[in-house]
Amino acid sequence: MAMTRRMALVNGAAALAVTAAEAKPSALHRRLICLDTHLDTPADLARPGWDVTARHAHDTDMTQVDVPRMGDGGLDGGFWAIFTPQGPLTPQGMMAARDAALLRAAQIREMVAAHPKTFELAFVAEDAARIAARNKIIVYQSIENAYPLGEDVSLLRGFYKLGVRMVGPVHFRNNQFGDSATDKKQFGGLSPRGRELATLANDLGMVLDASHASDDVFDQMAEMSRAPIILSHSGCKSVFDHPRNIDDARIRKLAAKGGTIQINSYNAYLISVPSNPERDKERRALFDKLDGLDAMTPAQAAATVREVAAGTKALSTKYVTPRATIDDFMKHVTHALELVGPEHVGIGCDWDGGGGVIGMEDVAAIPQITDRRVKLGYTEAQLSNFWGGNVLRVLSAAHAARKV
Amino acid sequence: MAMTRRMALVNGAAALAVTAAEAKPSALHRRLICLDTHLDTPADLARPGWDVTARHAHDTDMTQVDVPRMGDGGLDGGFWAIFTPQGPLTPQGMMAARDAALLRAAQIREMVAAHPKTFELAFVAEDAARIAARNKIIVYQSIENAYPLGEDVSLLRGFYKLGVRMVGPVHFRNNQFGDSATDKKQFGGLSPRGRELATLANDLGMVLDASHASDDVFDQMAEMSRAPIILSHSGCKSVFDHPRNIDDARIRKLAAKGGTIQINSYNAYLISVPSNPERDKERRALFDKLDGLDAMTPAQAAATVREVAAGTKALSTKYVTPRATIDDFMKHVTHALELVGPEHVGIGCDWDGGGGVIGMEDVAAIPQITDRRVKLGYTEAQLSNFWGGNVLRVLSAAHAARKV
Repeated sequence: MAMTRRMALVNGAAALAVTAAEAKPSALHRRLICLDTHLDTPADLARPGWDVTARHAHDTDMTQVDVPRMGDGGLDGGFWAIFTPQGPLTPQGMMAARDAALLRAAQIREMVAAHPKTFELAFVAEDAARIAARNKIIVYQSIENAYPLGEDVSLLRGFYKLGVRMVGPVHFRNNQFGDSATDKKQFGGLSPRGRELATLANDLGMVLDASHASDDVFDQMAEMSRAPIILSHSGCKSVFDHPRNIDDARIRKLAAKGGTIQINSYNAYLISVPSNPERDKERRALFDKLDGLDAMTPAQAAATVREVAAGTKALSTKYVTPRATIDDFMKHVTHALELVGPEHVGIGCDWDGGGGVIGMEDVAAIPQITDRRVKLGYTEAQLSNFWGGNVLRVLSAAHAARKV
Repeated sequence: MAMTRRMALVNGAAALAVTAAEAKPSALHRRLICLDTHLDTPADLARPGWDVTARHAHDTDMTQVDVPRMGDGGLDGGFWAIFTPQGPLTPQGMMAARDAALLRAAQIREMVAAHPKTFELAFVAEDAARIAARNKIIVYQSIENAYPLGEDVSLLRGFYKLGVRMVGPVHFRNNQFGDSATDKKQFGGLSPRGRELATLANDLGMVLDASHASDDVFDQMAEMSRAPIILSHSGCKSVFDHPRNIDDARIRKLAAKGGTIQINSYNAYLISVPSNPERDKERRALFDKLDGLDAMTPAQAAATVREVAAGTKALSTKYVTPRATIDDFMKHVTHALELVGPEHVGIGCDWDGGGGVIGMEDVAAIPQITDRRVKLGYTEAQLSNFWGGNVLRVLSAAHAARKV
């Protein structure tokens, strides 16, 4: 990408055009089983009329993953997240979150049921190759933010039964299970209930995910877990110092335990983005329009999304905000690879959850990641681990370490 | 039906042939929106390889409902049950039941998602006519046995969110919510937690179902509820005295409150069936083979079902057991109709849950019910209420009485 950040901001359309041209996957990329460990796409499934098998454009639809674009990008599947925003730690808040998470879990399964020739649910590591061989998309399920479990950790069993195989205790804010990377220290790591959660996840054979968790939570989960743990979508603190990124010592610790860090493409974690309360206020007002999307008619929902997309574009002109490029993203990838090698690094772009950089705006653009590593001499075997083997090894080890 | 019960036992095949001949629906029957308020068919969805859109035969497949047979019978839909057998009242038992019920709920939604031109989820009374007009099958959801809610009544909210609109607190045995019709008196009705459950169901706008509940539970739910309640699959005690059937005074009370009794076609509740421990032991051993069906390959599952079906047939020859006929079933229908009129009676055959009588072995045979009422002078308007209007009125009233 020769384009400067500034140019790209002024001319988003040009950036997209370059992306499409660059995105064509190589034969090598096509041969790999490519998994992304954090897909927030399930949130889009609740949009009335939104069809995951149809092609959409990020700049008008605000989505980054669908079946045609996964095909373009050669992404074979990944962990489809049951994400719940952190709400109040009240019985009412927890119940509402639980109910929303149960519905989201059902919606992921409904997506697969609706398109049985396109998707297949995956539960164990061996499922990935089998499903890919049938030219279907691999659907593992994960929980981002265990808040919806409320005061009853055992509900994790219910999600396990529905197919969930990875769980991260927290999101942006502290909750009943422990401290968030982006909140004040409260428990100094996991709460007692958080320890219960980690133990149960381990006993069930679920992968523990420390993305969004505080460093203390990372340390404690790595310490407690009988199996390797994962950072499903994180960056490197030594490339850019942000609480959501992780330092080198901890990446080494993660690798030593057999785990893997999956690199995130979330703008504000890749480069320095000065805060701007005015911009954020306007953006919030804009995004509030998306609330209640699921109660709209398909036409209303589509119109609302177009309106918010246009508003977002206008905001990015009004408040010029630094945007990371694929080069910035690759710096995190490269750093992690150089630090712990291709057996402990992978990709978790946070598509449909805030991910995407200039030059890699949606999932169609990911073949560039492979191309860039190939140019640096990475072998197919290394890239095979990077794109899927590592997370499957972690999943397999978690399953092997289960107790129930 | 000129056939005697004895003949039918000796010659099941002949009985089935008669059923098919009699089953052709009249134009009138076709015009009605016909709903069955207790379909246990969701249990079959977990059978590997079992396809709800394919035609099956009861005597080899042990199922009674699928799309082709619903078409034959002119059944437009109904309440698809999330049924959980009563297990131990331990945390482990309750958790296992909860997880199984969550998966069953997902499976009902997956059935609909997999066949969007055939099925549609229904939530409010108005949905029924709209869905029927599109020639699709109406899928309301219900809970039979609230045991899976464990100690946390609030989980009912999660099921509501998934679409459940009817709940019965108990099944064959007492549980944490109250007394079963077929168990010893323990609470003398609802437990304190059972009252909580009934209140929450009411507040959510779910219909309270007293089938399987003790008379005390029936009385207390009828008393507590702001909305009419239902007996989703029950019979009349004054026709045959069985704890699962309800006495005339209570049927009158139900009707006075605006509710409806939906008549069951479960053999042992329609006529006197002497107990036979030896037969029951052999039958249990046979049915135990069905455990773990969901972990089998489709071929194994189908073979196991065929084996159990053949074994069941052999058992019915070895131990001659009285079997009710459609005449016996219609006696309960007629009695209820004569007692409280066609605005307070309907059908809940318990298909795939033990229902079915000689002459009406599966859902394909239900047009006979209409034919018999027409011969007795019932009008189309009366039959329209009987087959659907009554339960929709109850659903509508429950929804209107909601508080949250």
